Amino acid sequence: LSGQVFHDVAYKAKDRADLVAGIDEFLDQVTVLPPGEWDPSIRIEPPKNVPSQEKRKMPGALDESSSHSKPEKHSGPELERTGRLFGGLVLDVKRKAPWFWSDFRDGLSLQCLASFLFLYCACMSPVITFGGLLGEATHGHISAMESLLGASMTGVVYSLFAGQPLTILGSTGPVLVFEKILYKFCKEYTLSYLSLRTCIGLWTAFFCVVLVATDASCLVCYITRFTEEAFASLICIIFIYEALEKLSHLRETFPVHMHSKLDLLTIYYCKCEPPAHPSNETLRIWRSSGVNVSGITWGNLTVTECRSLHGEFHGPACGHNGPYAPNVLFWCCILFFSTFVLSSLLKKFKTSRYFPTRVRSTVSDFAVFLTIVIMVLIDLGIGIPSPKLHVPHVFKPTRDDRGWLINPIGPNPWWTVLAALIPALLCTILIFMDQQITAVIVNRKEHRLKKGCGYHLDLFMVAVMLGVCSVMGLPWFVAATVLSITHVNSLKVESDCSAPGEQPKFLGIREQRVTGLMIFVLMGCSVFFTSVLKFIPMPVLYGVFLYMGVSSLRGIQFFDRLKLFWMPAKHQPDFIYLRHVPLRKVHLFTLIQLLCLVLLWAIKASRAAIIFPMMVLALVFVRKVMDFCFSKRELSFLDDLMPESKKKKLDDAKNEAKEEEVMPG
Amino acid sequence: LSGQVFHDVAYKAKDRADLVAGIDEFLDQVTVLPPGEWDPSIRIEPPKNVPSQEKRKMPGALDESSSHSKPEKHSGPELERTGRLFGGLVLDVKRKAPWFWSDFRDGLSLQCLASFLFLYCACMSPVITFGGLLGEATHGHISAMESLLGASMTGVVYSLFAGQPLTILGSTGPVLVFEKILYKFCKEYTLSYLSLRTCIGLWTAFFCVVLVATDASCLVCYITRFTEEAFASLICIIFIYEALEKLSHLRETFPVHMHSKLDLLTIYYCKCEPPAHPSNETLRIWRSSGVNVSGITWGNLTVTECRSLHGEFHGPACGHNGPYAPNVLFWCCILFFSTFVLSSLLKKFKTSRYFPTRVRSTVSDFAVFLTIVIMVLIDLGIGIPSPKLHVPHVFKPTRDDRGWLINPIGPNPWWTVLAALIPALLCTILIFMDQQITAVIVNRKEHRLKKGCGYHLDLFMVAVMLGVCSVMGLPWFVAATVLSITHVNSLKVESDCSAPGEQPKFLGIREQRVTGLMIFVLMGCSVFFTSVLKFIPMPVLYGVFLYMGVSSLRGIQFFDRLKLFWMPAKHQPDFIYLRHVPLRKVHLFTLIQLLCLVLLWAIKASRAAIIFPMMVLALVFVRKVMDFCFSKRELSFLDDLMPESKKKKLDDAKNEAKEEEVMPG
Repeated sequence: LSGQVFHDVAYKAKDRADLVAGIDEFLDQVTVLPPGEWDPSIRIEPPKNVPSQEKRKMPGALDESSSHSKPEKHSGPELERTGRLFGGLVLDVKRKAPWFWSDFRDGLSLQCLASFLFLYCACMSPVITFGGLLGEATHGHISAMESLLGASMTGVVYSLFAGQPLTILGSTGPVLVFEKILYKFCKEYTLSYLSLRTCIGLWTAFFCVVLVATDASCLVCYITRFTEEAFASLICIIFIYEALEKLSHLRETFPVHMHSKLDLLTIYYCKCEPPAHPSNETLRIWRSSGVNVSGITWGNLTVTECRSLHGEFHGPACGHNGPYAPNVLFWCCILFFSTFVLSSLLKKFKTSRYFPTRVRSTVSDFAVFLTIVIMVLIDLGIGIPSPKLHVPHVFKPTRDDRGWLINPIGPNPWWTVLAALIPALLCTILIFMDQQITAVIVNRKEHRLKKGCGYHLDLFMVAVMLGVCSVMGLPWFVAATVLSITHVNSLKVESDCSAPGEQPKFLGIREQRVTGLMIFVLMGCSVFFTSVLKFIPMPVLYGVFLYMGVSSLRGIQFFDRLKLFWMPAKHQPDFIYLRHVPLRKVHLFTLIQLLCLVLLWAIKASRAAIIFPMMVLALVFVRKVMDFCFSKRELSFLDDLMPESKKKKLDDAKNEAKEEEVMPG
Repeated sequence: LSGQVFHDVAYKAKDRADLVAGIDEFLDQVTVLPPGEWDPSIRIEPPKNVPSQEKRKMPGALDESSSHSKPEKHSGPELERTGRLFGGLVLDVKRKAPWFWSDFRDGLSLQCLASFLFLYCACMSPVITFGGLLGEATHGHISAMESLLGASMTGVVYSLFAGQPLTILGSTGPVLVFEKILYKFCKEYTLSYLSLRTCIGLWTAFFCVVLVATDASCLVCYITRFTEEAFASLICIIFIYEALEKLSHLRETFPVHMHSKLDLLTIYYCKCEPPAHPSNETLRIWRSSGVNVSGITWGNLTVTECRSLHGEFHGPACGHNGPYAPNVLFWCCILFFSTFVLSSLLKKFKTSRYFPTRVRSTVSDFAVFLTIVIMVLIDLGIGIPSPKLHVPHVFKPTRDDRGWLINPIGPNPWWTVLAALIPALLCTILIFMDQQITAVIVNRKEHRLKKGCGYHLDLFMVAVMLGVCSVMGLPWFVAATVLSITHVNSLKVESDCSAPGEQPKFLGIREQRVTGLMIFVLMGCSVFFTSVLKFIPMPVLYGVFLYMGVSSLRGIQFFDRLKLFWMPAKHQPDFIYLRHVPLRKVHLFTLIQLLCLVLLWAIKASRAAIIFPMMVLALVFVRKVMDFCFSKRELSFLDDLMPESKKKKLDDAKNEAKEEEVMPG
C-alpha cells in the first residue's frame, strides 16, 4: 500500500512542480495522502480518488469552471436587494411563514431536550455575570435582575418570530463598554443615566428599523469566510481566555497560603482587630450605625462582621484582604478541569465502540448536562464551599428608586433627546455588526440549513426588542457568537449506523424554535427555582465555557491552516486548498488572518473596545486588498463558503469526467 | 465501500452458520469489518484480505495444520531438559556469552537514556516505600536504607550477569507478608529475627540453586497465555489500585475541613493543649524527659512539639488527629492526575501530526521523565507543602545495634538453623513463581527478542543475590512484573517513517544491559543526592504508577476480550479468534479467566496473601481442566503464544494458497 502512496506522491509532485515552478516550493509541498482516515474531524479521500498526473496537470482547465473563478459569497434570494421599502423583510416573512408550524413539530426530539438543558445552563451564567458587571458599573441601576428579565423577554420574542431562531441572543462585550462609558458621562454631567439610555436605545431601534427598511442586511454578502473566521476565532479565543481568567480571578476571592508550613498549623490564626488608625470614613460609619466600638469583642467577629465594621485582619493566616481560604481554590481548579475533560469525553463517546448507537448518541447529546449534574453532586458530596451561581430570588428592580418603565426625558433637559442621536449611531453599527456576523456564521452553507435564513427579519426583531428593553430600562441583547455556534452544534443530526471511528455523516441541523424558546422561558422562570440553581458551582460553569470555546474552534478552517505550520509536509491532511494552492501562499493567507486577529485582540483588550465592531468591518477591506496578492483562483480555494466536502466531490467528479474523456472505455 | 463490507459480512455469516449451526449465535457473531483502522493499538486487516466464503467454509482444513492443532507453548532450546546437573545453566551461559559485549554497545542510544531516567524515578519510590513498610513491620531492623542497598546490589549484579537483563528486580507483596509473619513469630518466641531470617534466606538460596541444577525452570512451559495474562492483569490492577489507594491515604495524613464556612475563618483555630487526663504512659514520658509541664506555654507549641509532649489538639480547625491541613490534599490530587494525563499525552505525541519524527519520538521516549521534571517545577513554584520523596542521606544501617554482616545463628539455639528449612521451602516456591512468571511475560514471543532468554541463569543470579542479601541482612528482591513490562515497553523500537495515525511497525526491543545497570548503580548512589530527590512530590510518583499500570494493561488480550462484552457485534474488531471461535465460547473463556482473577484478588487482599504465588500455580491446573470445555482448535486461537499478527498472516497466507489451488490462474 505504501508503495502506492509514494507512487501517487511522485505523480503529485510533478504536478505541483508544473504549477509552482520552483524546486524549493516543490519540496515544501510534497504531501503524502495517507491510506485511511485517522482524525474523525478530517475526511481523507482514499488514494483511489487522487487524480492521476494526466488529470491534474491542467489546473487552467479548472480555472475556467465558473464555480471556482471568483470567491464565493453569501448569495441566494435572501440577500438580493429588492429596492422596495421593507421589501427584504416582507420576503423574509413570506419565506419563513410556511415553516412556522414545522418549527415546533421538529422540536419534539430527545436531542432538543438535551440541547435545551445544556444551553440553559450555559446561558444562565453569562446573563447573571453580565448583569453583575453592569450593576457594578452603573451602581445597581441595571443589574442581574434586569439582565435576567431582558434576556428572557428578548429571547422568547426572538425565538418565536426571528428569521433564524437558531441564533442565541446574549450580552456582548462592546455593549458593556458602551454602558460603562455612558454611565460615567452621565455622572459627570449630572444627567439621568436611565433616561438618556432610553433615548439612545429608542434612536438605535429606529436606525435599525431604517436599516431593515433599506435592505441594508444585503451588505453581509461582503463578509467572506476570511472575515467570518477571523471574527469567530477571536470570539472563541476570548471565550476560552475569559474562562481561564475567571478561574484565575478566584485566586483573589480565595487567597491561598502558598508557602505555609504544616508544622506551624497550631500557631496559625487570622483574627479581626480594631483598626490601628481608624480613618475619618470609618469613624463616620461607626457613628452613623451607633456602634459602641469599645464594647465589641473584635476577636470573636466573623469575616463579614469584621468587614462591615471596617476592622483589620491580623495573624499569620491572613492574606492580602482577609483570611486565607483553605482548599477552595484548588477544589475550583479540580471542578473546572474535570468539567472540561468529562464533557469532552462524554461528547466523544458517540464514536466509541461500546454500547448500541442509541445509548451512545443519547449520552453524547446530554454530555454537558450530565457533566454538570455529576459535578454538582460531587461538589455537594465533598462540601468545600466553592462559589455558587447566585440568581436573584425576588422579581423586582434591583434599586428601589426605579420601576419597570423609564421616562425617556425624565429629569434631563429636552435637548438630550436629540443629542442621544449621536451615540445611537455608534450603537447602531455595534448592534448591526455583532448581529449580522453571527447570523452569517449560523447560516453558513456547511450547516446545510433547509428552512432558509432571514437577516432582515432577525434585525427587525432585535430592533423591536431593543426599543422595548430601553423603555423598560433593561440591557440590550444581540446575537452571541459562541452560544449560537454551540446551539447549532448541539442540534447536529448525524447518520445513525456509523461504525466507530468512521466519521458519522452530517445530515443537517434540527432547525426549530422550541429549544430557543424553552431556554429563555426557563430563564425567565429562574427566579422561582433559585433553590436548585444555587447548588451549581461557578467553576463548573467556567469549565462549560472552556468546553464551548474549544469545541466552537473545531471546524474553523483558519485553525486547520494554523496547524499546518507545525506539520511536516508529508503529514498534512488532504485539504482541497492544499491540492490547488502552493503551501507558501496558504501560509501567507494564514499569516495575514493571524495578524488581523492579533490586531483585533489588541483593540478588544484596550480601552478602545467600543470600536471593535467597526474593526471587524475593516476586515472586509483587508480582504479586498488581498485580491492584489493572491490570484482569484487561489482565493476561491482559500476563502470560499462552499462546504469542503462538496467542493472536493465536485472536483473529483470533474476529474473523473475528464479521465473518461482522455481515455474512453 | 460499505456495500463491499456487507457483502463480506454476508459471506462471513454463512461461514459462521456452518460453524456454529445456530441462528442465535449467528446473529451474535455477525461482525462488520470496518474499512480502515481507527485504534492505533489494533491492526485491522483491510477488507481485501478477508477470505471469501469458499476459503472459510473449511475450518477443518485449518485444524489439520500442525501450528493450530494444539495450544502453543513456550518452547525452544532454552527450556529443553538436559538431564545433566546444571545442564540448563551451562547452556544459558553459552547462549548468552556471545551477546555480552553487544549488550553494552546496544545501550548507547538516546532511548536508553530516556528509559533509564524514567525507570530510575519509577523504581526509587517502591524501594523506599517498601523499605519504609518493612521498617514499620520489623521495628527498624530492615528499613529504607537496607532496602536501597539491597535493591541496588542485587540489581547491579542481576543486570550484569542475568539471562534476561530486561527484567527489573523489585520488592513484591508476598515477600513483605512473609517478613511480617516471621518478625511477629520471632518476637513471640524471643528469637533473633535477623539471624533466623539469614538462615531461611541461605536455605532458600540453596533450594533455588537445586532448582537450577535440576533444570526445574523447564516447567515454565506449562504457563500458557491464560495463566500469564491472568497474573499480569492482576498485578497491573493491583498497581493501579495501590496508586489510587496511596492517594486516598493522603486523606489521613492531610485531613480536610470538608464543610467549613468561609465566614468563620477568623474564628477557626487549632491549638495545642495539655491533655485533660494524662495517661500513665504520658506521665512516664514527661518524667523521663524531665519536662516541667506547668512551665510549658502549650498554646505556642508547634504540631510536632505538641505530639512529642503528648498534648491534645483543640479547636474548630482540628481534625481527628491534629489540625486540618489546608490545600495539601487537593493539590496532591491535581499533581496525581496531571502527571497521569501529561505523561499519557506526551507518550501519544509520537503518533501526532506535528513536528518531524525525530522530535516526536524523543518527546515520546522521555514522556514520563519530562512529566516528572515539569511537575516538580510546578510544585516548587506553587509551594504547597506536598509530601516529598525522602531518601536516607547517611550510609549506615537504620538501627545502631546491627551491622552489615549477620551471624546466621547469633543468639538463637542451634536447631533453628535446621528448622529454618521449612519456611525456606515456602519461600522458595514464592521466589520461583514470582521470578519465572515475570520472566515468561518479558520473554513472550510478541516481544521478538533476538538475544534469547535464560530462565536458569536468571534464577541462579536471583539465588546468589538472595544468599548475599540474607547474610548482609538486606531484603530479598525478585522480578517485579509491572516494572519489567514498563522497562520492555520503554525500549520498544518502532519503524521511523510512520505516517501519523498509522500504527508504527514494531521492530523489536532494544535488548541491552546498560539501562538496568544504570538504574541500579544510580539507585545505590541516591544516598548522595538526596538534596535533589527531596523535591519530588510523592503524588507525582503515584501518578507515574497509575500510568505504568494502565499502560501495562494495554496489549493484554484478556482485556481486549473483556471489552467485547460491551461491544455490539458489528463494532467488534477483527481479532483472529473472533474469526474462528464462536463468540459464546470466547465469552466463556473470558469469564473463567475473570473468575480466576477475582479469586486471586481475594487471596491477595486477604490475610492468606502468602499463598498467592501457589495459587498462580493453581491457574495452570484450571487451564488444564479447560481442555474438557473447549476444543483444541478453539484453545489454539484463544490461548496461544504466537503474536496475533503473525498468526493472522499465516492464516491469510494459507487461505490465499488455497484460493490459488481452487481457482488456478
